[in-house]
Amino acid sequence: AMPNKKKYKVNGDSGIKAQIQFADQKQEFNKRPTKIGRRSLSRSISQSSTDSYSSAASYTDSSDDETSPRDKQQKNSKGSSDFCVKNIKQAEFGRREIEIAEQEMPALMALRKRAQGEKPLAGAKIVGCTHITAQTAVLMETLGALGAQCRWAACNIYSTLNEVAAALAESGFPVFAWKGESEDDFWWCIDRCVNVEGWQPNMILDDGGDLTHWIYKKYPNMFKKIKGIVEESVTGVHRLYQLSKAGKLCVPAMNVNDSVTKQKFDNLYCCRESILDGLKRTTDMMFGGKQVVVCGYGEVGKGCCAALKAMGSIVYVTEIDPICALQACMDGFRLVKLNEVIRQVDIVITCTGNKNVVTREHLDRMKNSCIVCNMGHSNTEIDVASLRTPELTWERVRSQVDHVIWPDGKRIVLLAEGRLLNLSCSTVPTFVLSITATTQALALIELYNAPEGRYKQDVYLLPKKMDEYVASLHLPTFDAHLTELTDEQAKYLGLNKNGPFKPNYYRC
Amino acid sequence: AMPNKKKYKVNGDSGIKAQIQFADQKQEFNKRPTKIGRRSLSRSISQSSTDSYSSAASYTDSSDDETSPRDKQQKNSKGSSDFCVKNIKQAEFGRREIEIAEQEMPALMALRKRAQGEKPLAGAKIVGCTHITAQTAVLMETLGALGAQCRWAACNIYSTLNEVAAALAESGFPVFAWKGESEDDFWWCIDRCVNVEGWQPNMILDDGGDLTHWIYKKYPNMFKKIKGIVEESVTGVHRLYQLSKAGKLCVPAMNVNDSVTKQKFDNLYCCRESILDGLKRTTDMMFGGKQVVVCGYGEVGKGCCAALKAMGSIVYVTEIDPICALQACMDGFRLVKLNEVIRQVDIVITCTGNKNVVTREHLDRMKNSCIVCNMGHSNTEIDVASLRTPELTWERVRSQVDHVIWPDGKRIVLLAEGRLLNLSCSTVPTFVLSITATTQALALIELYNAPEGRYKQDVYLLPKKMDEYVASLHLPTFDAHLTELTDEQAKYLGLNKNGPFKPNYYRC
Amino acid sequence: AMPNKKKYKVNGDSGIKAQIQFADQKQEFNKRPTKIGRRSLSRSISQSSTDSYSSAASYTDSSDDETSPRDKQQKNSKGSSDFCVKNIKQAEFGRREIEIAEQEMPALMALRKRAQGEKPLAGAKIVGCTHITAQTAVLMETLGALGAQCRWAACNIYSTLNEVAAALAESGFPVFAWKGESEDDFWWCIDRCVNVEGWQPNMILDDGGDLTHWIYKKYPNMFKKIKGIVEESVTGVHRLYQLSKAGKLCVPAMNVNDSVTKQKFDNLYCCRESILDGLKRTTDMMFGGKQVVVCGYGEVGKGCCAALKAMGSIVYVTEIDPICALQACMDGFRLVKLNEVIRQVDIVITCTGNKNVVTREHLDRMKNSCIVCNMGHSNTEIDVASLRTPELTWERVRSQVDHVIWPDGKRIVLLAEGRLLNLSCSTVPTFVLSITATTQALALIELYNAPEGRYKQDVYLLPKKMDEYVASLHLPTFDAHLTELTDEQAKYLGLNKNGPFKPNYYRC
Amino acid sequence: AMPNKKKYKVNGDSGIKAQIQFADQKQEFNKRPTKIGRRSLSRSISQSSTDSYSSAASYTDSSDDETSPRDKQQKNSKGSSDFCVKNIKQAEFGRREIEIAEQEMPALMALRKRAQGEKPLAGAKIVGCTHITAQTAVLMETLGALGAQCRWAACNIYSTLNEVAAALAESGFPVFAWKGESEDDFWWCIDRCVNVEGWQPNMILDDGGDLTHWIYKKYPNMFKKIKGIVEESVTGVHRLYQLSKAGKLCVPAMNVNDSVTKQKFDNLYCCRESILDGLKRTTDMMFGGKQVVVCGYGEVGKGCCAALKAMGSIVYVTEIDPICALQACMDGFRLVKLNEVIRQVDIVITCTGNKNVVTREHLDRMKNSCIVCNMGHSNTEIDVASLRTPELTWERVRSQVDHVIWPDGKRIVLLAEGRLLNLSCSTVPTFVLSITATTQALALIELYNAPEGRYKQDVYLLPKKMDEYVASLHLPTFDAHLTELTDEQAKYLGLNKNGPFKPNYYRC
Repeated sequence: AMPNKKKYKVNGDSGIKAQIQFADQKQEFNKRPTKIGRRSLSRSISQSSTDSYSSAASYTDSSDDETSPRDKQQKNSKGSSDFCVKNIKQAEFGRREIEIAEQEMPALMALRKRAQGEKPLAGAKIVGCTHITAQTAVLMETLGALGAQCRWAACNIYSTLNEVAAALAESGFPVFAWKGESEDDFWWCIDRCVNVEGWQPNMILDDGGDLTHWIYKKYPNMFKKIKGIVEESVTGVHRLYQLSKAGKLCVPAMNVNDSVTKQKFDNLYCCRESILDGLKRTTDMMFGGKQVVVCGYGEVGKGCCAALKAMGSIVYVTEIDPICALQACMDGFRLVKLNEVIRQVDIVITCTGNKNVVTREHLDRMKNSCIVCNMGHSNTEIDVASLRTPELTWERVRSQVDHVIWPDGKRIVLLAEGRLLNLSCSTVPTFVLSITATTQALALIELYNAPEGRYKQDVYLLPKKMDEYVASLHLPTFDAHLTELTDEQAKYLGLNKNGPFKPNYYRC
Repeated sequence: AMPNKKKYKVNGDSGIKAQIQFADQKQEFNKRPTKIGRRSLSRSISQSSTDSYSSAASYTDSSDDETSPRDKQQKNSKGSSDFCVKNIKQAEFGRREIEIAEQEMPALMALRKRAQGEKPLAGAKIVGCTHITAQTAVLMETLGALGAQCRWAACNIYSTLNEVAAALAESGFPVFAWKGESEDDFWWCIDRCVNVEGWQPNMILDDGGDLTHWIYKKYPNMFKKIKGIVEESVTGVHRLYQLSKAGKLCVPAMNVNDSVTKQKFDNLYCCRESILDGLKRTTDMMFGGKQVVVCGYGEVGKGCCAALKAMGSIVYVTEIDPICALQACMDGFRLVKLNEVIRQVDIVITCTGNKNVVTREHLDRMKNSCIVCNMGHSNTEIDVASLRTPELTWERVRSQVDHVIWPDGKRIVLLAEGRLLNLSCSTVPTFVLSITATTQALALIELYNAPEGRYKQDVYLLPKKMDEYVASLHLPTFDAHLTELTDEQAKYLGLNKNGPFKPNYYRC
Repeated sequence: AMPNKKKYKVNGDSGIKAQIQFADQKQEFNKRPTKIGRRSLSRSISQSSTDSYSSAASYTDSSDDETSPRDKQQKNSKGSSDFCVKNIKQAEFGRREIEIAEQEMPALMALRKRAQGEKPLAGAKIVGCTHITAQTAVLMETLGALGAQCRWAACNIYSTLNEVAAALAESGFPVFAWKGESEDDFWWCIDRCVNVEGWQPNMILDDGGDLTHWIYKKYPNMFKKIKGIVEESVTGVHRLYQLSKAGKLCVPAMNVNDSVTKQKFDNLYCCRESILDGLKRTTDMMFGGKQVVVCGYGEVGKGCCAALKAMGSIVYVTEIDPICALQACMDGFRLVKLNEVIRQVDIVITCTGNKNVVTREHLDRMKNSCIVCNMGHSNTEIDVASLRTPELTWERVRSQVDHVIWPDGKRIVLLAEGRLLNLSCSTVPTFVLSITATTQALALIELYNAPEGRYKQDVYLLPKKMDEYVASLHLPTFDAHLTELTDEQAKYLGLNKNGPFKPNYYRC
Repeated sequence: AMPNKKKYKVNGDSGIKAQIQFADQKQEFNKRPTKIGRRSLSRSISQSSTDSYSSAASYTDSSDDETSPRDKQQKNSKGSSDFCVKNIKQAEFGRREIEIAEQEMPALMALRKRAQGEKPLAGAKIVGCTHITAQTAVLMETLGALGAQCRWAACNIYSTLNEVAAALAESGFPVFAWKGESEDDFWWCIDRCVNVEGWQPNMILDDGGDLTHWIYKKYPNMFKKIKGIVEESVTGVHRLYQLSKAGKLCVPAMNVNDSVTKQKFDNLYCCRESILDGLKRTTDMMFGGKQVVVCGYGEVGKGCCAALKAMGSIVYVTEIDPICALQACMDGFRLVKLNEVIRQVDIVITCTGNKNVVTREHLDRMKNSCIVCNMGHSNTEIDVASLRTPELTWERVRSQVDHVIWPDGKRIVLLAEGRLLNLSCSTVPTFVLSITATTQALALIELYNAPEGRYKQDVYLLPKKMDEYVASLHLPTFDAHLTELTDEQAKYLGLNKNGPFKPNYYRC
């Protein structure tokens, strides 16, 4: 029983939204998935990677305590019971995880230091709905250090690290989340965050749009006091644009998903490493000499191609867009149609954002032992459904690895059932999460402190300068030393010495 | 006596503009040079590269015929004398050069074939002012094949290949250009193109804006019949934006310089190769193990860094923009301030678009034999002027190579006197010129055939779809096979099966 | 309780040898570890990788059957009881593992086909002592198909896959091995292989030299009928050279460890991939932008450096040999002393074959969170013992990952306690094992069929031609097509058309 | 009139040898060209590269002085006339060239410093026959500084830089050489070096074996006093091995050509750069996206493949040796037969050491504009002779570039008429020449100082330790810092702390 098959598992996107009446938006969304803003990595912490990442988790979670947290009476050491977590006693283990994460999130720690004096979020009442992990905890405690009050729920019923939730509750954060919530639990937790006597949020930090939606539906008046929404996921951003188009967005919203820094790290740099990691962990294959076809040469495809080429694979590329196609050529990849190489390749990787890129017909023609996996937008790229026919036998050979066997004995190796390989079979480096979290923090500060009128009831990208600031906060990790413009140079270039250094539309 | 020092030599940009009253625009331009649209490669064929590129040139040009073409009576074989070239008898040599260029410009040849039936430029009267090379000739003859009438002058007093001009004249093109024009000749030639009885241009193809300026100044009424301007250079585009801002642009103009395809080829892909070529031709140095600092990590810097790293150099990067800086880190380059490495590096390369990036102080601290060169926007990046002091000795050791010698015997190796290395010391591949020429042709077709009102009196970028078309015309060179969307996929993505495949703002 | 700490765990090499009186040889060995022939990969299947590799293992091994196999009465389906395995009923699961391995060992399968007609091992009675894995099973069944009779024991008390052993026993191979043997079991199993009534081995296949040693010690007369020994490990080979030097080697021996093909795959190609895999699985770190120092630029170091550079790390190299040092320079790595960079690097990797390359002093100076690991010959490269002092705290954060914490809170991340990272923390691709197994099979065939007198009582390398043959059998995996010499060309080069193509001393 | 077509032009090797009765050796040589020791780079300075390399040459050589140097009366400023050069007055220009070369040959300069005190060549009387270039001059003056007396002739009738010869003569070296010697001049010069009253050589430094041969033939008694021969070229080395085999070698000889350091630089590192340089200078092609087939995956092929792959070309490899073939696969190149890709590739490069690798049949099938060139051993790899048939038209389009045109208009681009591209069309970096020259100097010192009996009448490779010393002298160029073994480590490894660090047979 893979969690991903369960009703509410939200791998990448989508979530509960079918249920609440958002039908037209979903349709709309399907029409035009943006390749650029293709997924929310912070939603990506899959069951397995979570487990392996946190050693604490393993030995404290084995408690076969089946009581629902909602039915428990728990207090933290200061006597507060304004939270709902699995087991407050796990707080110490969670604290250790948070401390380790702090070491790898220097940007947030720097933000704490730099901005602490002035408390730029003093007075902010933030309600949040994200994955609850050690990295999120570092974000929340940073927001707290900057002056904000926070209440928090989980955006995914499986991804909560119970120990971390306990640690947050112990240090005074009203957190409502545990691993393995039911659907009803999910909405109950969200409601407990916003429906409080004597406390009303003035900022929203959302990942997927469920929190935002809940307030829209249940407490629309709350928006009168809300200064803005910061949203991180593709789906959530899409929902916001829909609202905006329909004239129904009543506060400014910041689209964090499409900030340049986040995009480059989510896609190009992260995938460059995770394609290797994901393939290795699932198959132990050797890359050298292998023939690979990568479908799609956007940022994700570029990352995959570069990594595999560097490891000695022979890489073919398919593309629909002649500009990306020409780039693939110049980067040294033969541009082919999938049909031309399907019989000879050892690995097929999809990164298109499109559907049915690998069809049953392709699968029928692959050679024995061919590995098929998806690094793209959703699980539609490979037509996995077409493999669920009686003449084919499925064999689960490892977690996330199926052999699909043809009547003549040919087997293909399907990874993660066509879902995102990097989210299912490799971990997301803390460094990438750090970039996202820092961007969220800055977006909150920006919206909260913006002078009246700077932001209308619309969806905004983070100002270039803020994007640059996020980047600059991560440079010390690499002991990287930025050059400063002289006055003369700044004048020559017509730039402010502190940036922004590029126009907003500049993307590379 | 380097040609580049001469008054009218236009390496890169700028040209005659100081002379004609454009003072304010120039000022403006200096304030904000765009890094992206940083130079016009078709202006780039320097004296030396031209010579070596055309073998024909060498043995027919040795005629010490000192008569000015303006004083000669020449007719082509059909009896026409509506042209002015160095020597019509060189036509045969020029024709051979054109034929060779045709082989490497398959996109234009395909355009001839595909569009010939319908003659999309039937009725077009194009006046052009560009470098006159074999590649331009292929463009002109393509325009002719598509139905246009053309008259042509040179945009640079040095860059004309006389044999090619002769070949064009011989086949009936009124061409007014020769190598080594005087300033007066330059304007006379332009005037002969536009000031014709019974013929009035309805399209302008310009490279640098001199032709456009001439018409503005002398024949403003001509604009009534002109359907549009296609401009290719940074400078020319800048002038057009100035006119537009000032409300003085009276026809639509197409900015060809900033089309995505052209940019990637001009900068990333072309520089990746030309940095190696330029350094090798001038210094015969070995790249392996050399320490290099590259100032600036835009597209040009990225190309330089990638190439040198691949050849075994150790590359340091300087940047002012934290986003580009972070990219440099992730790509495996140490990000430093120039001061930190200036004593140890073997090569310094500037690609910033900024001024005085390498100062006299830096130059003083470089180690013996350090090579200094510029791949960036203009010759201001290295403060070469600061080296013109009495205590330093200059020794010209080869064409484009100076040793500057300090009193203690230390010498630095300065390439191309700080001008663009790739334009001065390496050649521009025909393939890159082909992309530019194809883009120009399509821009002309678009503007000429656009329905009334599609384009206002403004500066436009080539529509994404056209950009994609240019790319697609170059794919056959690589035997590259594009994938087509199925109907179902196109619907899913909300795209037209024939593109455009990306929004206009998409840049990678 | 890590298995590696147990008495008989043989990571890399060495094994039981201390116990049996080999003291002087061991000393000798320590004096001169060969970097080239540095380890035996087939000895490398560590506890953890074994587990994860075989899914079968997991669900059949959970039987808490504590009876010693030696005390059990088992028969296979044909009624034979000439074997001793954990549980003969697991045979079916083991068979499936073998079938999967067969698909990735095409060379052995091809050998079966090509050589089956003539049965080149007809009459051979091979006694073997190696790891017992699916890959070994494919080797054994290949030997059987070529005509040999085999009896087999395990060379490592932990590495036996019980299901595979069961499958071999079921199909008639007298196998004596199980996972978790005691020391006494270990020698008992070996003895059961050789001490049989009515059967005497005429060939030995050994991995580590324990089997050979046992026969020397207990049944020296057996050597009269033995045609040769094939040995695969560094240690075993070293022992043989010692015997040879001492004039005590009484049969020819083939050193399989140092064959060119095996070496390149064990070291350069395998390490290029496993360094990334090992680091990722243990730390989930991001490689991009990280500063790494690699100690040693032999084949292993070259592989590590190339991989990390390709992933965007900044790599420094230390070397003692100026020739390798110059290669590092030309390949684009700064050559430093460890002291110069120890404070700034994020990762330290040893690949020297030397001892105490990383000392306590280095460890004291590393920055917080620095990762330290070893890819070299043995666990002596990092002075791990020096970290076992009271003021330092060790925290096991994951399997194979320790945080060592200084009084001031600084922590370094030590992987696999300084043992070989790639053996402990990543898996060995079947393809690499296939090359080794094929080499072993060919060495057996060569020795068994060699005409009297071709091989003396000495240690030999596999003839070049055989090495080439092993390589050629693996080319079809890559759909690689070899060019054949024409008669004229062969004559011109003075070569036989079928090879050998290079002199024996040629190494690249 | 290409010099290479002239009778005595010696590109690569061989020289005058046909003439002097060495017929059988030549035959022998043709039978077995060693790929490893494939060519003599110091013989490589082709006419064109020489010209461009030395700016001095151009403006002083234009003297149309047609008097033979043999007929001139010249004295240097000290009154000596024991030399014969073109024009002693050019000495100053030559001195400047030598000074520039000194800056790039730090190893020789270091050798001067380190060894000067003890004058290890005191008493040595060296007669030399090599190319006479600025780099050779640095070598000669180093030998002088170490105590040797030298007399010198040129090993090639075209390669002498007259200014450098003049500078050497001016500073007292008896040099007999000029550019454009006749065959008779060539032997006259050699004779003037050895046939001197009151001076008899005791060491020979040869490049090609002509000097050695002359002494054998004319003054065999001279060998009584000669302590050894140092030979650098493939041909010369081959001759020495022949003499040795025939028992006719009467002094020890040192084979400098096959020293590890030299080989790696001559082949892998140098070719990695020169393939790009050679292709760019001759064709101005763009590498990105081009399909290339490289025939042969030895060191040269590896260098070519790596460079082109890095520049974005798609590279195919052909091989006859399965071991090299497997390496090509693991390095990410498709291994094909030439026939399979010949119709689709844009470039064909041979690096095999074999003959007729590219046949007329292949040439017939190439596509239009395909570029064909040779980086291998000799001009036999491409069957150029097969293109000299009436139906094909040859067009020389540039120096070293021919278009061969088929009746249907298809043209292939043949570079350097199939001779070595890197020698004909690119320059050899001084750094590579520095390695060779240093190796020569050390070989002379070794042979001259070796105790009686260390070297017999045989051909030797430079001892490993000397090879390492050459490498170490070049490390400062890269600011590379070697690590030193501790006493404990040296003992552990069984090594001397000063090397040699590897056994003699170790090659990587």
